[in-house]
Amino acid sequence: MRIEAVDVFFLALPVIEDIGDGSQDMVLVRVRAGGYTGWGESEASPLPTIAAFVAPPSHSACHGVLDSVLGEPVDGPGDILRLSRRVAERGLDLLQTPHAWSGVEIALWDLLGKAREEPAWSVLGLAASHPRRPYASQLFGDDPQQTFDRARTVAADGYRAAKFGWGPYGRGSVRADADQVMAAREGLGPDASLLVDAGTVWGEDVEAAAARLPALEAAGVVWLEEPFVGGALDAHAALAAQAGSVRLAGGEGAHNAWAARALVDHGGLGFVQVDTGRIGGLGPAREVARHAAARGVVHVNHTFTSHLALAASLVPYADYRGELLCEYPVAPSPLALGLTRTHLDRDDEGLVRLPDAPGLGLELDLDAVRGYLQDVEITIDGRVAYRTPELEQ
Amino acid sequence: MRIEAVDVFFLALPVIEDIGDGSQDMVLVRVRAGGYTGWGESEASPLPTIAAFVAPPSHSACHGVLDSVLGEPVDGPGDILRLSRRVAERGLDLLQTPHAWSGVEIALWDLLGKAREEPAWSVLGLAASHPRRPYASQLFGDDPQQTFDRARTVAADGYRAAKFGWGPYGRGSVRADADQVMAAREGLGPDASLLVDAGTVWGEDVEAAAARLPALEAAGVVWLEEPFVGGALDAHAALAAQAGSVRLAGGEGAHNAWAARALVDHGGLGFVQVDTGRIGGLGPAREVARHAAARGVVHVNHTFTSHLALAASLVPYADYRGELLCEYPVAPSPLALGLTRTHLDRDDEGLVRLPDAPGLGLELDLDAVRGYLQDVEITIDGRVAYRTPELEQ
Repeated sequence: MRIEAVDVFFLALPVIEDIGDGSQDMVLVRVRAGGYTGWGESEASPLPTIAAFVAPPSHSACHGVLDSVLGEPVDGPGDILRLSRRVAERGLDLLQTPHAWSGVEIALWDLLGKAREEPAWSVLGLAASHPRRPYASQLFGDDPQQTFDRARTVAADGYRAAKFGWGPYGRGSVRADADQVMAAREGLGPDASLLVDAGTVWGEDVEAAAARLPALEAAGVVWLEEPFVGGALDAHAALAAQAGSVRLAGGEGAHNAWAARALVDHGGLGFVQVDTGRIGGLGPAREVARHAAARGVVHVNHTFTSHLALAASLVPYADYRGELLCEYPVAPSPLALGLTRTHLDRDDEGLVRLPDAPGLGLELDLDAVRGYLQDVEITIDGRVAYRTPELEQ
Repeated sequence: MRIEAVDVFFLALPVIEDIGDGSQDMVLVRVRAGGYTGWGESEASPLPTIAAFVAPPSHSACHGVLDSVLGEPVDGPGDILRLSRRVAERGLDLLQTPHAWSGVEIALWDLLGKAREEPAWSVLGLAASHPRRPYASQLFGDDPQQTFDRARTVAADGYRAAKFGWGPYGRGSVRADADQVMAAREGLGPDASLLVDAGTVWGEDVEAAAARLPALEAAGVVWLEEPFVGGALDAHAALAAQAGSVRLAGGEGAHNAWAARALVDHGGLGFVQVDTGRIGGLGPAREVARHAAARGVVHVNHTFTSHLALAASLVPYADYRGELLCEYPVAPSPLALGLTRTHLDRDDEGLVRLPDAPGLGLELDLDAVRGYLQDVEITIDGRVAYRTPELEQ
């Protein structure tokens, strides 16, 4: 099979709120080869990502993504890995490349799975797919009462783990943050796993982050996520050294396996969380999972959008045994929820598992999201470089 | 002063060759505030960079660059540093952000310098600006004879240091690479500093890189640049440990100070080379220079395009004493050469120094490059998100 077409779609809610909810817009990617169609999602800013697909070449290490993939053979996993290298080399100086490529790479595993009638995890070479314990991933409330209510709601809904993040956390006083965390703990009850996401709020200020540790320890928080920006290796290591029972989590910003590996090797992480929609897809995410496992660091997915993205995020560590957590967005936008007709619903034990169906195993509902499609056109010297394609299977 | 306008221009040669010459197109940025105009250049793929300027917001950590800078106050260096943080935070999940921001940041130093009638290095807080020893930066020839001829030519032209890179190097046999390096040494003569740039050709294959070391040592090569992709910290460290008299250089791909610092701290570099047009401008480049100096690692500019970009690249380490090298493109494209009416020509001692004039101190020649301007238009649902502005002072 050869890659006949790669199409990218920009979808968005009518109003984008200035909050930490990444499910308000979407980069959807469709790949066609050999009569099959695969779908993937990049977790990225749509317009620069579209531009990275169609960018005119600047020099030998700065090509648009389409330029490196159209017409290429894709008959097996080795072809996807080869294409990943090709895109990375020819797109080395185009910074947006990994975000754009992620959706294509995921779509290629989906496509290969459909062609072989195998789930994507099997095509990737994994021997099994085990269920994961979903943690309800949501934003902190505007005040402790709202956080408490949200925690109560997810606990009542059967979640045994929950993460709160962004919102006011880290932006006010140490005391205010402690109140938020304690409200979450009280709402969840004493036995649930509580996770806190600081959303890089402290930049690289170790002292500011360390001041929050006592409250996090007192509330029995399992991990503190992204206290700092992902590149701040020294700050992570310094905080990890004094974090006691609280372990550090991070890696969602990694745009290649090396960035995540650096955090594992030099940042003192306890949990590494990569987003398959940013890091370049399933291949590099799997590489990070293996690297982490060899060093006693636990792999957890990062995802906050559709169930297509959720499914992709579960693949790279699907074969790891034990009751491992997975991020599970509890309040996705109608766009994120609507993209697929089928969903990764929790089973009777409250666990989430990948479908047995070929590829990523999800059925898209394009009619449900067509209204969110943005009509984009890019011209260069009168030539159309991009025009939104028809959104159809 | 408030930032009244930020305009970005995509310029390109009529034909882009698939070679490692990054001067074939250009992202030029113009900033206006308080009646002053500053200019900067991003070393980036133009179309995704334009898209990063005008991208609609996706969520609170994914804003286009313009959205974070228009109307902001800019009265002193602190404002530029504050804006850098603001753009980074609000553009955290828009990967292309640092490349887009670089040109704005550089233009802001240029603008502040003009407003204060001070050179940019002085506005940045440096106490002095010392001349640098330019090394002639060029591509390897297609064969050793062509490399020899190029080396002879630059030696005859008075260069006492030269770098050869890309082209066939690392793509053929160990023997063929040795012949190329020896040809460069013979052409330059025994006393000139010879530098070799592998252009990330070995990915993270330490063995392949190590096989080239004996020939590099025999030819007295000062540094081997970018044997691997910038994120491959372990590979760098492993090669550095066996590189003998050859020191490793790298860092041009760093899109923030952390990435360059990681290479300094964990990659065993002897020389760190950041590109002010990629790393986010003069501020983060200066931060890397200080970080490197404190660890005995030598800062060298990376640049390969116009003299506007060359001037910006020299600022972050302008106050360091000693005969430090600087990259100096010897065969820039007519676009890169034409952008400025004035140039950083070598003086009687063969050295390059920053102009004393305000800002970056260069006079642009927009008439000379107007013919290279690409006419770009981006519309979203019929609304014009970007249209190429008038290219004028």
